[in-house]
Amino acid sequence: MTGSDVRDKTINLGAGPSSLPTSVLLEASQGIIDYEGTGMGLTELSHRSSTFQQLLQEAESNVRKLLDVPDEYAVLFLQGGGTEQFSATLLNMLAAHAARNPTYQGTPPVDYVVSGAWSNKAFKEAQRLSSRVNLAADLRASVSDEHKKVLRPEEWSLSSVDEAPAMLHYCDNETIGGFELPQDFISRLPQAYRERVPIVADCSSNILSRRLDVRAHAAIYFGAQKNIGPSGLTMVIVRRDLVVDPDAVRREYTPIIPTTLVYKNAVDNGSLYNTPPMFPIYVSALVFRELLKQGGVDGAQERAKTRSKTVYDALLAEPKLYRPVVQHPEFRSQMNITFRIMDPKTQEPSPDLEAKFVAFCSEHRIVNVKGHRSVGGLRASFYNSISQEHAQAFAEVLAQFAKQTM
Amino acid sequence: MTGSDVRDKTINLGAGPSSLPTSVLLEASQGIIDYEGTGMGLTELSHRSSTFQQLLQEAESNVRKLLDVPDEYAVLFLQGGGTEQFSATLLNMLAAHAARNPTYQGTPPVDYVVSGAWSNKAFKEAQRLSSRVNLAADLRASVSDEHKKVLRPEEWSLSSVDEAPAMLHYCDNETIGGFELPQDFISRLPQAYRERVPIVADCSSNILSRRLDVRAHAAIYFGAQKNIGPSGLTMVIVRRDLVVDPDAVRREYTPIIPTTLVYKNAVDNGSLYNTPPMFPIYVSALVFRELLKQGGVDGAQERAKTRSKTVYDALLAEPKLYRPVVQHPEFRSQMNITFRIMDPKTQEPSPDLEAKFVAFCSEHRIVNVKGHRSVGGLRASFYNSISQEHAQAFAEVLAQFAKQTM
Repeated sequence: MTGSDVRDKTINLGAGPSSLPTSVLLEASQGIIDYEGTGMGLTELSHRSSTFQQLLQEAESNVRKLLDVPDEYAVLFLQGGGTEQFSATLLNMLAAHAARNPTYQGTPPVDYVVSGAWSNKAFKEAQRLSSRVNLAADLRASVSDEHKKVLRPEEWSLSSVDEAPAMLHYCDNETIGGFELPQDFISRLPQAYRERVPIVADCSSNILSRRLDVRAHAAIYFGAQKNIGPSGLTMVIVRRDLVVDPDAVRREYTPIIPTTLVYKNAVDNGSLYNTPPMFPIYVSALVFRELLKQGGVDGAQERAKTRSKTVYDALLAEPKLYRPVVQHPEFRSQMNITFRIMDPKTQEPSPDLEAKFVAFCSEHRIVNVKGHRSVGGLRASFYNSISQEHAQAFAEVLAQFAKQTM
Repeated sequence: MTGSDVRDKTINLGAGPSSLPTSVLLEASQGIIDYEGTGMGLTELSHRSSTFQQLLQEAESNVRKLLDVPDEYAVLFLQGGGTEQFSATLLNMLAAHAARNPTYQGTPPVDYVVSGAWSNKAFKEAQRLSSRVNLAADLRASVSDEHKKVLRPEEWSLSSVDEAPAMLHYCDNETIGGFELPQDFISRLPQAYRERVPIVADCSSNILSRRLDVRAHAAIYFGAQKNIGPSGLTMVIVRRDLVVDPDAVRREYTPIIPTTLVYKNAVDNGSLYNTPPMFPIYVSALVFRELLKQGGVDGAQERAKTRSKTVYDALLAEPKLYRPVVQHPEFRSQMNITFRIMDPKTQEPSPDLEAKFVAFCSEHRIVNVKGHRSVGGLRASFYNSISQEHAQAFAEVLAQFAKQTM
């Protein structure tokens, strides 16, 4: 197959939508023509057929295995992207709050931790939807300043537990900034807070790349298009006791929730409240299957660690040329490696050298390494589908470019 | 290719997700491995790459050609299904109303026409979101009763134009009931009403199967998974002067709109407010291209008419055995042909004979002809991708089954 040959020569380090395993895409390319001998492509089946439901159930069951999701949590396959969840998580948690606190007076606070562009978008959306949004911590200023300490959870300005906050929201990995919270960072929150406040995590860009304590969370959500599958699928893992009928508990502080954003509708209908995004679910199911074969999340974690170490080592080997954007090593993302190329003389970022580097990568068929348009610089993303071989190839390109530049 | 061989022998008359042209799926099966020599599959490209944006622009431009969409209308590629639009159309039209009527007192009425299960769902959602929802007409009782006249638009209980209704909503084709409004039915609304009230149509299951007067509407929406492409894409065509910033015009009667449901965000960002569902867009783009080659909507309309005539004629040829659910011929859907099989002696619907018919179809590799689980009976859907040959094959099966049963 010609397509596969060209693929083999291309290293796509885009920040998402990202590469998918070739074996998965080859299987899907058959499955959309004739899915398992049905004479119909996967996307032509009824979403209520037993054939599709079986696939959906397998996907759910594999996600439960991969992330060790307990029965007390529902696993949902939705649409709308992480962005839709900026709204849906808050709206559903406000409804859950109303259900659990029937005599609550006033508006409960919600806490947001901002660590980059995406958590800031979630924070801004919260300000649209609620009148009492507390910025518990803004970690952005410390990201690229080695002299500023990154605030630890025990130092955040959390709302008082006595005020029964409706939730705390954070983003585990900031795709644009390349800022990833250390594993189990959130477990340092005060115990009373952890026990009483629903904690919601946006894990869109690092899900399945490292172990994650589902039980520490009220809800976890992620778009598929980084570590999982094609765009168009958004997954939510939510604790069942927080899934309520919002219309039954309306209060001044609970905005009405459009029906497709109501978690209860998805839970009660096994993610088939309306027609689901079948192709993204299909490909994701194949990826889950594949990942289980390759040692699950533990295997992925080991590989992610090795890949990112290879690349960061290559960057740090040339300190006069390359500078990681994130100055605090323990916050450097394993998924999105952001860095600047410095003018060796002035030690200022050089957009000129950066453009040359992008072209140099392109000559080696390494693509999509430009930083996000809002911040510039460079970003190389190493999601689950990127091999150690590809990380090494990128590290070599870094070394070669340094050699010819310095 | 084995997959294609099995496909050729299968006739999928499902109500959606529905069949897609084999040529389109074959092209897509290559495109997801290596899209036009990029070395990356289509779903692995950045959605902000020029390659993908070009595809999106072509899709939009082809939709404009196919449906003769004037520049004053935006064409949006969204997620969430028709069901999400039950909420979004109303929420955005309420905001538009607030923008256009800054001194309005009280809550404006919204009019809903219910003609089956889907428009009833839209009506129910409206009742959640607004306190003043008027059931302008309920056509359901007359659908299957030949003695009851179907109310014409001039007979509907519309809200007074003086009260400035925020919108009227109707569903052009009811997929479950098989009830399709005659073409340009809505043009019979009183002129003052047509000129002043935004008219919103759910065209999910008959879009691109017949000519449609976009200019008569404020907004038209449709899920892709019937006549267009795989599930996961929802399109909205909306008049630009009705696209407003809802936060700038908040009023008592305008609920807050979650950001992904705000039309203005999609319009301002060329449908790239967040990552779009790339595969469904890709396949839809291929279908639009194909349809233009085959004479556009005029060609599709001619073919739909011929196909449905073939099947209805076969049903009506055996009046003692087959009975169309829709008793008024001019309201019978060209897309979803619903019928019952009667016990020839008692002239009552016979679930027993219907089960036998489903099995008989299956022997002829005709699949998905069971009626919707909520209503029973039989339903054969003839979307754009179904050929006249397949309609004839189904008509023959109807004749053969009658011969062996009567």
